[in-house]
Amino acid sequence: MTPLRSYVSGRWQVPPDEGVPLKDAVTGEEVARVSATGVDRAAALAYGRGVGGPALRELTFHQRAALLKTLALHLREHREELYALSAHTGATLADSRFDVDGGIGVLFSYASKAKRELPNDTILVEGPAEPLSKGGTFVGQHICTPLPGVAVQINAFNFPVWGPLEKLAPAFVAGMPSLIKPASQTAYLTARLVELIAESGILPEGAVQLLCGEAGDLLDHLTEQDLVAFTGSASTALRLRHHPAVTGRSVRFNAEADSLNCSILGPDARPGTAEFDLFVKQLVTEMTVKAGQKCTAIRRALVPAEVIDDVAEATAERLARVKVGNPANPDVRMGALAGLEQREEVRRALKSLLDASRLVHGSPDRVDVIDADAERGAFLSPILLRADDPERGEPHEVEAFGPVSTLLPYRTAEHAVELAARGHGSLVGSIVTADPAFARQVIIGAAPWHGRLLVLNEEDAKESTGHGSPLPTLIHGGPGRAGGGEEMGGVRGVLHHMQRTAVQAGPSMLSALTGRWVPGAPRADGEHPFRKHLGQLKVGDTVVAGPRTVTLDDIEHFAEFTGDTFYAHMDEEAARANPFFGGRVAHGYLVLSFAAGLFVSPDPGPVLANYGLENLRFLTPTFPGDALTVTLTAKQITPREDADYGEVRWDTEVTNQDGAVVAKYDVLTLVAKG
Amino acid sequence: MTPLRSYVSGRWQVPPDEGVPLKDAVTGEEVARVSATGVDRAAALAYGRGVGGPALRELTFHQRAALLKTLALHLREHREELYALSAHTGATLADSRFDVDGGIGVLFSYASKAKRELPNDTILVEGPAEPLSKGGTFVGQHICTPLPGVAVQINAFNFPVWGPLEKLAPAFVAGMPSLIKPASQTAYLTARLVELIAESGILPEGAVQLLCGEAGDLLDHLTEQDLVAFTGSASTALRLRHHPAVTGRSVRFNAEADSLNCSILGPDARPGTAEFDLFVKQLVTEMTVKAGQKCTAIRRALVPAEVIDDVAEATAERLARVKVGNPANPDVRMGALAGLEQREEVRRALKSLLDASRLVHGSPDRVDVIDADAERGAFLSPILLRADDPERGEPHEVEAFGPVSTLLPYRTAEHAVELAARGHGSLVGSIVTADPAFARQVIIGAAPWHGRLLVLNEEDAKESTGHGSPLPTLIHGGPGRAGGGEEMGGVRGVLHHMQRTAVQAGPSMLSALTGRWVPGAPRADGEHPFRKHLGQLKVGDTVVAGPRTVTLDDIEHFAEFTGDTFYAHMDEEAARANPFFGGRVAHGYLVLSFAAGLFVSPDPGPVLANYGLENLRFLTPTFPGDALTVTLTAKQITPREDADYGEVRWDTEVTNQDGAVVAKYDVLTLVAKG
Repeated sequence: MTPLRSYVSGRWQVPPDEGVPLKDAVTGEEVARVSATGVDRAAALAYGRGVGGPALRELTFHQRAALLKTLALHLREHREELYALSAHTGATLADSRFDVDGGIGVLFSYASKAKRELPNDTILVEGPAEPLSKGGTFVGQHICTPLPGVAVQINAFNFPVWGPLEKLAPAFVAGMPSLIKPASQTAYLTARLVELIAESGILPEGAVQLLCGEAGDLLDHLTEQDLVAFTGSASTALRLRHHPAVTGRSVRFNAEADSLNCSILGPDARPGTAEFDLFVKQLVTEMTVKAGQKCTAIRRALVPAEVIDDVAEATAERLARVKVGNPANPDVRMGALAGLEQREEVRRALKSLLDASRLVHGSPDRVDVIDADAERGAFLSPILLRADDPERGEPHEVEAFGPVSTLLPYRTAEHAVELAARGHGSLVGSIVTADPAFARQVIIGAAPWHGRLLVLNEEDAKESTGHGSPLPTLIHGGPGRAGGGEEMGGVRGVLHHMQRTAVQAGPSMLSALTGRWVPGAPRADGEHPFRKHLGQLKVGDTVVAGPRTVTLDDIEHFAEFTGDTFYAHMDEEAARANPFFGGRVAHGYLVLSFAAGLFVSPDPGPVLANYGLENLRFLTPTFPGDALTVTLTAKQITPREDADYGEVRWDTEVTNQDGAVVAKYDVLTLVAKG
Repeated sequence: MTPLRSYVSGRWQVPPDEGVPLKDAVTGEEVARVSATGVDRAAALAYGRGVGGPALRELTFHQRAALLKTLALHLREHREELYALSAHTGATLADSRFDVDGGIGVLFSYASKAKRELPNDTILVEGPAEPLSKGGTFVGQHICTPLPGVAVQINAFNFPVWGPLEKLAPAFVAGMPSLIKPASQTAYLTARLVELIAESGILPEGAVQLLCGEAGDLLDHLTEQDLVAFTGSASTALRLRHHPAVTGRSVRFNAEADSLNCSILGPDARPGTAEFDLFVKQLVTEMTVKAGQKCTAIRRALVPAEVIDDVAEATAERLARVKVGNPANPDVRMGALAGLEQREEVRRALKSLLDASRLVHGSPDRVDVIDADAERGAFLSPILLRADDPERGEPHEVEAFGPVSTLLPYRTAEHAVELAARGHGSLVGSIVTADPAFARQVIIGAAPWHGRLLVLNEEDAKESTGHGSPLPTLIHGGPGRAGGGEEMGGVRGVLHHMQRTAVQAGPSMLSALTGRWVPGAPRADGEHPFRKHLGQLKVGDTVVAGPRTVTLDDIEHFAEFTGDTFYAHMDEEAARANPFFGGRVAHGYLVLSFAAGLFVSPDPGPVLANYGLENLRFLTPTFPGDALTVTLTAKQITPREDADYGEVRWDTEVTNQDGAVVAKYDVLTLVAKG
């Protein structure tokens, strides 16, 4: 059998040697071989920087998003093939869907987020412009630009599809090429995934590379603009974090390490309640999905001391119904661990855990399996432990990375928070309760120790994705033992691949640099900008209209017409007592309406619709007799990739006869490309 | 002379030994002594965690902001005393103001930012709620909670006041106690600063501690919830970053290392232009302020090859006018380096730099000084070097941390970007040009290598704070050699001291947890919520009003009244051709106005004013005959600390007779506390 190929420097490279055999988790038979002999890792990084990066940086966020969506659709067509390969890892079909569909889902999510939340541009203007001087001639603006390096993505064995895709998606959107280094154990699945990506030709050349086999000297060649995104054990994370190139060049190092996550049963959730059942059901699910090989699985089940017997009994009963065996058999609920080595590690950890706990269900050594050989395949029974002394260290410190959880009793909400924190930092925790007071106390206390917290009860149970599922729109990662990292979380995950830079300049220079008009930059008032198509319109194009005097009759008429007879508009004496007005004032909505009447260009033209308005502030009251002038300036122009129009944001300022600003807001319009 | 005291574990501790003498930079005489003998560092950290943290976390962001402002006002009263002490460090009065006033300015800025941009709450709800399910019963929300540890702040010798204050301010706002460890060289100034803080009693006990002298075993005692904010040399940063407690516990480690910052003269800025003069003037300023001992100073001056002679000449001429000497003398423009040791280090670096460059101005060994002894005081002349081969490594790699810069010629904008990146990551760069195209090309190329970039020209020169000044509203920090960190930047700097956690729950649970109403959470519609004072009002209080039918007459009347005769409202045929409407529609502003007429409660009452509106989207057109209903729900209630009213944000939804959402927005009101 030829070892898996690596895809580096623009071509598939066949290792010249025999490589190391990778075994089917169920049958023990050879599935593939792996070797990285002969791969020039420095050249691969240079290729990513020199070919992939520049190609990606040519594209806008929206163009990258469109490619990601196309890729997601393409991969979805090949799901079945990936499921079939995934079965070799010991996964059931449900497990495989979790991995494969989950990964494709991240691509869709990032494609959609990038289109909605990022500009159709190559750089990101972040946050508002910051005034830096009184006179307004010195302004600050944060921008984010893609790192001109390579995102080195070191993945764990347990999610060979989701792992690479959840790292690729934000890197790609940011404009940074990926070098994927799968864990050898299940690299054949990632290798096929990358083949599908490469064969499709959807992504620009150099945007994705694959290194199967040992990392070797890869990290030695990192520069300041590369980054490492690592998922795996805490000990490997520590070793890589210490690498001289990483520390010496301040290389961004993001780690997700599996952690001793807890699930906490609320004191309200007595046996017989919906929440009690939800807790038990979720615990069993988390123990058995992927045979418990999830960095987010529940390792510690914290329950009120007085119900620990009930929980133990109910969980054991449910576990007894879990059928273990060949995942190809549809009756099987739990497949094998990824390999015999993994099983040995779990057994070692169990020895240590059993010093501080006792078996409630299952056995480290014996398991009934369906359609398979219990010893050749890496099978293990689900194992529930119970530690009646929750202060012992082992349950909080020793991780058995398999279908293993420990029940622990707690006394009070404070005690539950303390025990949760004993994990020294976790990816996720869950609180199963219908009591908001208990939930709030535990969340506020436990939040600093967690990257994600799920509150589960009847309200969300039906639609909840569960304790173990990181979601692309939410951050994934936790402090301390969990690695101290943060991935995904929508645009947050994109920013990890970009450098934030504070730019300081005069307003006209800043507008030219960012393509966004800022106050103080020149305004051009020639032809009415509403008469210009998207391509003709320039940032800074302005219409000044007015003045229009607001009379008391206008105010009274507007009040009568709309029904808005608020006293500040109608009753001089009452209005005078108001701390802000000192007399009758015009409606804010009247000001907006008159302003629109002033700046509108009535005939059909490129402006198709006003679809919204943002950041409106009324700054000065309008009194009867005041004369309003409106200044509307094109602030940001965003052509859509997939429509014959785009979005234009207009800075809008309404002033009175004294030049005081009455109202400030952004008008949002759709304008035809023409 | 008794050594400086440390302020730890709630008391001032006098070292039992003699300590190490600290010398006046100008006279060489002893100013103070420093020793950390006997300080129990583990106890200090435990005190911060056990006393300072809990006290801070009791306060809301607004309450912390108010204390910070009070502290800033208090320190401003004692400026003169700090200036006087600062003179011992070799600083001129202008230098001292830069340090002292700059630091106090950071406190003011954070006090103001926190009040405006953070909620009056103990946790921060970050970003919008993320819908996680189709049915709306499962929602995500990121929250940020303060780390329950200690912010260990290790400062550099060059800014003994600004350094500690710029680190304290964001930590304090976040709710995290600080342990300040000044560089020994100038610790007497920081010690006095902390005395002023402690004596004032303004901040809660345990919020600020001071460790004068060696760090010792301080870092050994760090836990997952502590963090380190370091400013100093790249080599020390590297050593601390490698500390087993830091890497082993994923302790957040933020480093600001001095870097080889560049200033780039644009090709448009020929001799005789304003920009040419600005470049030379800024270069001289950056070389001489604080005697060039700034991590943000210009070390590399990149100029078009064809004008390097002119720049050299003009800069040398200006440098010749800089008077060096005793900073107490008002004629003196540049004082001493911080000490003789610093001067020796600069001289060593100069030797290396001179391998690749030649002297244009100044001498490593000789300087004329006013009112001082040139050898006892740590005086050095400003030194301008010129490296005609810009590809040599030394100018980009060797830092002389004093009044030293090197002129380097570049050919093209690409070449300038390449040379800028040769610094391997910088805190700041400046581009002196009036040409937006050149500026944009250099900014986009150089941004990934910089934390801050200044574009200087006639437009902003008058108000610009200059190349060397980090500002509290902008991030400070840079990639690679600059440490890979990020400080300040307004609220961004606060978030470095908080854990971001994704909370998943049903909408009613989420509302209870965060104190913010989210769609799907219960609405309570009893008494009109506009009749309730701030204290009575609850999140979820709702008024549903309507329906009101919009007639064609209404539309025509509104058009005539406001002047908004846009064709989509007035011309059936033209409106039908519009891709979004398919017929005449009501004005968006008419919808808003009618909605207000429906939900308003006219009589005087607790609602004082509608001060704004946010996130308005028009989602469904309103056709003549449509009947509108509005639902207004209290979403967020923010009492002000310093007024008898607060802010209430109302979720507003306008629907039509089919239940389709016509418009969604947030109405912002001021409501009396009552």
